[in-house]
This record gives sequence, structure tokens and C-alpha cells, in this order.
Amino acid sequence: MKLQTPIIIVNFKTYLESTGQKAVELAKNAEKASKETGATIVVAPQFVDIARVAEAVEIPVFAQHIDPIKPGNSTGHILAEAVKEAGAIGTLINHAERQLKISEIEAIISLTREKGLVSCVCANNPTTCAGVAAMRPDIVSFEPPELIGTGIAVSKAQPQIVTDTVNLVRKVNSEVTILCGAGVSQSEDVFVALKLGTQGVLVASGIVKAKDQYSILRAFADATKQ
Amino acid sequence: MKLQTPIIIVNFKTYLESTGQKAVELAKNAEKASKETGATIVVAPQFVDIARVAEAVEIPVFAQHIDPIKPGNSTGHILAEAVKEAGAIGTLINHAERQLKISEIEAIISLTREKGLVSCVCANNPTTCAGVAAMRPDIVSFEPPELIGTGIAVSKAQPQIVTDTVNLVRKVNSEVTILCGAGVSQSEDVFVALKLGTQGVLVASGIVKAKDQYSILRAFADATKQ
Amino acid sequence: MKLQTPIIIVNFKTYLESTGQKAVELAKNAEKASKETGATIVVAPQFVDIARVAEAVEIPVFAQHIDPIKPGNSTGHILAEAVKEAGAIGTLINHAERQLKISEIEAIISLTREKGLVSCVCANNPTTCAGVAAMRPDIVSFEPPELIGTGIAVSKAQPQIVTDTVNLVRKVNSEVTILCGAGVSQSEDVFVALKLGTQGVLVASGIVKAKDQYSILRAFADATKQ
Amino acid sequence: MKLQTPIIIVNFKTYLESTGQKAVELAKNAEKASKETGATIVVAPQFVDIARVAEAVEIPVFAQHIDPIKPGNSTGHILAEAVKEAGAIGTLINHAERQLKISEIEAIISLTREKGLVSCVCANNPTTCAGVAAMRPDIVSFEPPELIGTGIAVSKAQPQIVTDTVNLVRKVNSEVTILCGAGVSQSEDVFVALKLGTQGVLVASGIVKAKDQYSILRAFADATKQ
Repeated sequence: MKLQTPIIIVNFKTYLESTGQKAVELAKNAEKASKETGATIVVAPQFVDIARVAEAVEIPVFAQHIDPIKPGNSTGHILAEAVKEAGAIGTLINHAERQLKISEIEAIISLTREKGLVSCVCANNPTTCAGVAAMRPDIVSFEPPELIGTGIAVSKAQPQIVTDTVNLVRKVNSEVTILCGAGVSQSEDVFVALKLGTQGVLVASGIVKAKDQYSILRAFADATKQ
Repeated sequence: MKLQTPIIIVNFKTYLESTGQKAVELAKNAEKASKETGATIVVAPQFVDIARVAEAVEIPVFAQHIDPIKPGNSTGHILAEAVKEAGAIGTLINHAERQLKISEIEAIISLTREKGLVSCVCANNPTTCAGVAAMRPDIVSFEPPELIGTGIAVSKAQPQIVTDTVNLVRKVNSEVTILCGAGVSQSEDVFVALKLGTQGVLVASGIVKAKDQYSILRAFADATKQ
Repeated sequence: MKLQTPIIIVNFKTYLESTGQKAVELAKNAEKASKETGATIVVAPQFVDIARVAEAVEIPVFAQHIDPIKPGNSTGHILAEAVKEAGAIGTLINHAERQLKISEIEAIISLTREKGLVSCVCANNPTTCAGVAAMRPDIVSFEPPELIGTGIAVSKAQPQIVTDTVNLVRKVNSEVTILCGAGVSQSEDVFVALKLGTQGVLVASGIVKAKDQYSILRAFADATKQ
Repeated sequence: MKLQTPIIIVNFKTYLESTGQKAVELAKNAEKASKETGATIVVAPQFVDIARVAEAVEIPVFAQHIDPIKPGNSTGHILAEAVKEAGAIGTLINHAERQLKISEIEAIISLTREKGLVSCVCANNPTTCAGVAAMRPDIVSFEPPELIGTGIAVSKAQPQIVTDTVNLVRKVNSEVTILCGAGVSQSEDVFVALKLGTQGVLVASGIVKAKDQYSILRAFADATKQ
């Protein structure tokens, strides 16, 4: 499965504003913005909410993480088969808040390929992004941890580092989709991110904590079509 | 919330035989055995299946793990509020396959108390069980890792260690419910576990991988009523 | 081996002021203060410095951590036999900066007993201290992480919590030595800690970062003799 | 600092046969073989043995791991400055027995560069090796975990995978030194490894557990000169 770029991935994290019934509502707003504009919007709810979100909307649903395991003895872990059965078509991997060993990242990328899931691996700086890209996931997402949740967008605060990331990643992988995230909160941040050579954004609090989630989603979606 | 003892907790782990629609079927069989006998049977499905299982049955549903976090920036983690909203009334903690730092165990026990969830902390030997019990969870479950999944029941293979565990735990905590697990696969194992001073069992493959899940569940339930 | 109480343990952490040759000097100052006063002072240098510190002084030397491993395939880990051969007679376990799974803590306590090493397990609050104490180490050290390195002593800032810790620990273990730490920087902090029912302190920056390490060590040693 | 290729790195792990005084003897044998043949032999003893080994021999000494930390509050961790002060000139990173998050690997590589230490990052398969190589360490070492300690050399058992690794690594990094390891126990294994395009081997039990450590070391050294 290949998602059409540009891509906006909305990470629901573990905010109460995106838990349970509110996860479904947020996903429906994302679907509305996507349908109205033709923009690709992916939603990544908590594990417990994947099934009801996937049932409620037709836009792509990602898990926030999966574990590098086979079915069996793995109490408390996240099974690729289970999130897929619940309706997810891809997963975040190695988010700054759920960091993994490099051997686990490689094993999960391999597992997603085997199961037909889309892999989006996050990394914290240009060099780590290059390391990730060399392992050939579908998507690499650059997120400097110090900007996460600040409202100061990486694309505006560190344009040179975004460009460096794109360049370093392209040296080792000409095909991977490149996103950036952290602090993305205005439609202009999305526009700038695309101008800097990325194919989209990973966003969380900028959407989830917004008073009017739909309006921001719609503005982000419009920005990908400029 | 206080569960009536004896208790049988069925840990669905990440077996395909207890994923998705099969999780719902297994939970329904557990509910049937529980209703017919009056025995307390708890089901612990994967996170993605909690909501549909909780919707399908009236017996208690546990998560297999929760994280010691507050709502917010915790991508890929398990939020107490989210599993509760999905219908879980308790959680396993520190299963041998999902071991935790001691400070995390204490924080999760405290969190479950705050959120009105039942805490069941697993531990690998009598001394660790005593350590866990001193932190005052609702339930302690003794599971020697070397017997997990073997079909050789701890209650039959290591009766003295089960007795030692009960004694050590009672020295530091007179109220905690004590379960044992690992290898439990026959109704006699349940009967012996209770005779040794425990208040129930934690079981996984013995039920999940059984050809006739209902029959074993019913035999286990009957054993708690002897 | 049993250390005479009260005990002052000086944790060298990874400060440059207590690395290499400076570790030896600090240990010599601790030895001087100990010999002059008769107070028990233990030094816990970095792994690479254990051998030269143990060669230079006669006071007890602890490792800052050991791993729950047997000799063999454990690249990059800390072997009990190796730190003992280098001259350590005990070890810190589960320091707030090196937290462990509860099964690891139990395994390390068991290993120290087998190898004749003194075990000092740290924990972050009264309940966790009780959990640790129930696993029967030689020493429990209560350290609230939020005060570590602040210069605000736990014994002065949270006297009630120190008393609670002593009470909770004593309910499950009448013999374990109880220390407290975090922010300890003045001799009065040591004095108050002992008055609250502990048998000593665990101190780091209060000594290591002091301009005159010897003077503070001597004042601490004197405080244990009041 | 740049080591002359081919390189033999002897990982002492935590074997008793390479602990304490025996670590010094093994290092002296390695030095003898190195001086007699001109081959580059690096020794990687346990942390507690670095100082005495570095004092006893003139060949390069590596740590088995360092942590991505600055001096300060990191009890129980491995400080680059401390291992360097003790005499190490480089370090293994991410050994199969001490695996790290990708962000940690990147941070440690960066730290070694800053401190003038040689970085040797281990990885478990060709893809992970490419990921590591893209982060530009000095050395990448390919070690399939399933062969570690078996005496079945990767270079003999999986020649195609060694070649694949060399090819994948070279696509993203033309300069990095490539080693292979796991099961290396005969001089022929070293010879084959070099023929397959690597610049040396990482070896542990093949040397450490040998009855005559010097003879094997000498044979390995000779094999690098054929």
C-alpha cells in the first residue's frame, strides 16, 4: 500500500481530547477535511481506539507503535496482526516518546513489509534520519524532541536542519517519503515544510489541543494543495 | 471494586486464537462458564480488543498492562483512562513478558487506586512476590517464568514454592489476594492451587490453545467451587 | 560482611570532580575523615576507578551498580566477580539514575548474598522502600528523585516522609539498615536524618561538588557521632 | 585516531578467563602476537579492568560500551571521559548483548568524535549494518546473534550474508571500516572474512576460552598478513 503525498499524519498520542469517543470525533473531522480537499490525512489513535476509529472513518488509520513479535507469548505487547485486524493500515515506529533499539526498528520495518502495513519511522536529528532511511521504511519522519509540543514549528525554527535532513536522507535513499514534525501548529508551517523538500508533516498537539480541530485540519489540508 | 474470590484470570496474551473476533468468542465462553457456575472469571485481551470484548460480555475485563503516565505526550503508551473508557476494570502489571521497574510498579498501583481499577501484579518468585505485596496491590500473582507455557502446572510441579510464596506474602500483607500461574492446564491444577492457600489462578495457553476452550473454562470454574 | 552504623555512603556518580585521579583523592579524604572520627564512610566510585580507589584506601568501596548476570556472554555489563576482584565489598542497586526491574533487583540481592557483597537498594518513596525492604537487602536507601542534586535535604524538606518510610520499612523488615539521601549537603542534614530514625545517609553532589571535600566529609562524620 | 586495517578486536566480555589479572595476561598475549606480526589487535576488557590493562600493554584498548551522557548525575553509567582517562582509545557500541536505541547510538558516535575515541558499532544483519553505517561511525561490525559463541564462524556459515553486508554498507558509506564477528574461532575464519571484503574480525570466546590463547591470537594475526 502506497499513500499519496503530501501526507498529514495526526498523532493522537494519549491526550484525553483524542481518547475514546473523542478519538472518533477527531477522526471524523480529519476525514471531512480530507474528503473536501483531496489531501491525504492519516489518523493515529491509541491502540484501544483503533477498532472504533477504523470503523467510523474511511481515511487511513495508523497504530502509534507495534512490537517486533510473532503471535504468542507476548503479554502486554502490540501484535501487528491484531492492529491490522482492528483496521490499521500502518504504524508509527520509534516515536521520540517510544524509542526503540535499532535492531527492533529493523525487525518492525521487516514485519510491516511482510504484513502489508505502511511503516513510518521517526528520528530525532538528520544523522539518525539517515540511519533510519538506510533501513528502507516507507516513511521517515524527522522530529527534533526539543520542539515537540512547543507550538514552535521545526519548519520555521530550524529550516536549515530540515533541508540538511532531506539531503542526508536522499543520499542513502531516493524513494523514502520524508515528513517533518514537532511544533507544527499553523497551516503556514505545513506549507514551509513542503517548500523545504519534505512530503508532509506529523502533527499532534497542534491539532488535538486546538479549540476547533476541524478548522486547523482543513487549513493544514489546504496548505498541502497550494 | 473488589472481585469475589476464588478468581480465574484468563490472559489472552498475543495468541491468534484470542485476537479480534476470536477474542470475543473466547470471552463469551468464559462468560458462559462463569454464569453457569458462579465462578469469577476475568478476561485479559489485547489492548485493541478491549472495547469489543467489554461490549460483548458482562464478566470483568482487564488490560494486560498499563503505563505509569498521565494523559498527554506518551505516544505508543497505554493510558489508564483509555483502557477504562474502553471497558476494562483492572489490569495485569509486571507480567513476566512485560516486566517493569519497581518505581513503575508502585506508580501503576497508585494510579489504579486513583482511577478505581483493580491491580494484579505478577512476580517471578516468592521473594519478589513479597516485595510486590508490600506495595499493597489488590492481587499478587506468582508465576515462575520457567513453567510458563509448558503445561506443567506450578501448583503441581512446585507445591512447596507456592506455599512459601503464600507464607512470605502473608508476612507483609494480610489482605492481598494471591494467585498462582504458569503451566496451569487442568482443572486439578486449579484445585491444588486453592488447596495450597492461593485464591485462584492466572492462566493463558492452557485455555487459549485448548481445542475446546469452553470445556476447560467450565472445568476450571467447577474446580473453584469444589 | 556487616558495616557498622551509622553509615555515610558517598556516591561519586559520573562527576569529573570524582573521576580518575580525583576519585582517588576524594576517597583519601573520606578515609581521613573516617579514621579521625571512627565514622563508617563508604565510597562508590565509577567502575573504571574501583581498582585504583580500592588500592589507595582502606575504607569500604562500593560499585554503583552490578548486573544480575553470571560470568560469560554479557558484553558491556557489570559482573559481580569483577567488581569484587577489583576491591569492591558492596554495591548500590536501583539508584534513581539506574533503575531496575523488580526481578532484577531481587536477582542482584540474591547474587550479592552469594558473593559476600553488601547490598544497598535505593528507592524513590516510602511504598517502594517497603517493597524493596521485603526482599531483604542489607541496606535500603530512600531517595526522593525530585530533591537529588538540589542541596535541599530530604531530612529537612520532608521529615514526615522520612519517618513514614522508616515506619513502613520496619513493618516488613526489622533488621534492614535504612539510609536516606537526596539534597544532603550540610552536617545538620545528617544529624536530622539520624534523629528521624535512619542509620545514615547517601550523599553525592553535597560532597563531590564541595570546594573543600574533606571539611564537609569531616563535618558529616562528626554529625554521625553526636 | 585511525587504526590500521586489517583489525582484530578481542572482546573480553564478562568471562572469568578474561577478568582481573587474567585480563592483563590475555592483553599481554595479544600484544605479543601483535608485535611479532605487525597485525592490529585491539583488546576490549571489562570496565573495571580497563586501567590495569591499559597500563600493562601498548596495543589499543577499547571499552565494551559507553553511555550517551555528560559528566554529572549518571550513577552506574559509563562516562566517555572516565574510560578515556583510564586508557581506552575507543569503544564497542550496540553489541548484541548491550543493544541501544538508535538515538543513543547516534549520540554515542557523536560523543566519541568529540572526545577523540574510535567508534565500533555492532549490528545484527545487513540492513541494520547499513542503518548504522549511514550514521558514520569509524567501524561497523556485523554479528548475527544466532552464531555468537557457537564456534561456527559467520564468514564460513554465511559467506553470502557477509558479502551482502559489505555491499549494502558500501552503498551508504564508502569509508567505514567493516568487521564481521560471531563464531570466529579458527585462523581460516579470519582469512575468509577478509576475502569476503571485510577489514577484520570481532572475536570473543574463540580467543578467551581457548586453552592456549596466545597461539590462537598469533594464528589470527598471521591470517591478517597472508
